[in-house]
Amino acid sequence: MTETKKTTIVLFSGDYDKAMAAYIIANGAAAYDHEVTIFHTFWGLNALRKEEMISVKKGFMEKIFGKMMPRGADKMGLSKMNFAGFGPKMIKDIMKKHNAMPLPQLIEMAQEQNIKLVACTMTMDLLGLQQEELLDDIEYAGVAAYLADAQDGNVNLFI
Amino acid sequence: MTETKKTTIVLFSGDYDKAMAAYIIANGAAAYDHEVTIFHTFWGLNALRKEEMISVKKGFMEKIFGKMMPRGADKMGLSKMNFAGFGPKMIKDIMKKHNAMPLPQLIEMAQEQNIKLVACTMTMDLLGLQQEELLDDIEYAGVAAYLADAQDGNVNLFI
Amino acid sequence: MTETKKTTIVLFSGDYDKAMAAYIIANGAAAYDHEVTIFHTFWGLNALRKEEMISVKKGFMEKIFGKMMPRGADKMGLSKMNFAGFGPKMIKDIMKKHNAMPLPQLIEMAQEQNIKLVACTMTMDLLGLQQEELLDDIEYAGVAAYLADAQDGNVNLFI
Repeated sequence: MTETKKTTIVLFSGDYDKAMAAYIIANGAAAYDHEVTIFHTFWGLNALRKEEMISVKKGFMEKIFGKMMPRGADKMGLSKMNFAGFGPKMIKDIMKKHNAMPLPQLIEMAQEQNIKLVACTMTMDLLGLQQEELLDDIEYAGVAAYLADAQDGNVNLFI
Repeated sequence: MTETKKTTIVLFSGDYDKAMAAYIIANGAAAYDHEVTIFHTFWGLNALRKEEMISVKKGFMEKIFGKMMPRGADKMGLSKMNFAGFGPKMIKDIMKKHNAMPLPQLIEMAQEQNIKLVACTMTMDLLGLQQEELLDDIEYAGVAAYLADAQDGNVNLFI
Repeated sequence: MTETKKTTIVLFSGDYDKAMAAYIIANGAAAYDHEVTIFHTFWGLNALRKEEMISVKKGFMEKIFGKMMPRGADKMGLSKMNFAGFGPKMIKDIMKKHNAMPLPQLIEMAQEQNIKLVACTMTMDLLGLQQEELLDDIEYAGVAAYLADAQDGNVNLFI
């Protein structure tokens, strides 16, 4: 029986390196013909933010969160050795030297491979993020949809 | 064949936001009739601490750890944007506005849904936590019991 | 049908406490006759570094990373309450008192139990780590090999 394998990743973290790990595993699994879902929740939502400033109506605290959080994958920090933003620059320079794909390209590749990118609507509410601020062609869902994917999954990870 | 699905979560983290994610997934899975276990280890044990000061005999270092670690779910900090404790207050205010359940209530709900809450005895020893300091009606076990649950699990997460 | 169960852990974190959790679960699973793999990537590679200084040719940035990252399991910090390196000392003292195994011994035990320790070659490149700097008798592989192990796994964790 050759049923399709499933990889389902919760991306909770807003760190550049952790998001890279998530997207490298996801793209690898898609290349192996897995059905792949990345469910972005809490700080992981920042990986889906558009780089440009989007003007939307927000409450006061939602505005503060919006300003403090990185706008898009390229602005995210490292989980270790961030050195006030110098660490990510170092990593990106080394990645360029080794022809490794930077995070924004890994996300593009995921979309081309039809990986299902989901934004958690409950935490979007909490962090005051609106659909206009996030990448196009992603899905919106809650924990029930995540569980429906995960419970039949072969590789389930929380990153 | 409709056998019961199993969700088994290791809660290692002592962050408010990560514990929230763990309990939201756990409560969701229980609502889907999964058999759910949360195995609390290391800093994740703090989510199970009672809020009130419990007087127990401890060694010197165990006392220091006890004082430095948050007493209960409500005192835990955020993994990002903690801002010396201001971040959790912001998140809690926003949660109230959105009628989202705060962590202590998510834990209560888990107990009402018969989610098995387990405290890892080995790390309780290391951090000097005693049964009197933890919530009532939880279980105590080690890594062997965790693996017995996890190896037949559908959704296994380390948070 | 009693087929061998499989536990596959991605160790991404470079924290002493998280690596301990990974190795305790791994050793437990091996004791239960699971086939166990720990795939070390990003900061998790530091757990595999030899303690002694190994002289290898490196570029400028690779040298900086090499110097800043802990050389071996015993030098790693805590994810919480690190207190500029005092936290790990406290934990290790308490562990000694409780006869708990320190991380370097947990790693030795894993090797004795034939747990497959894998170093992620892609992130070795990024962090400028070379085979000479890592423990003997480990394997070298990429995300494809990880997925081959994980997709048939019973317990899959990202730590």
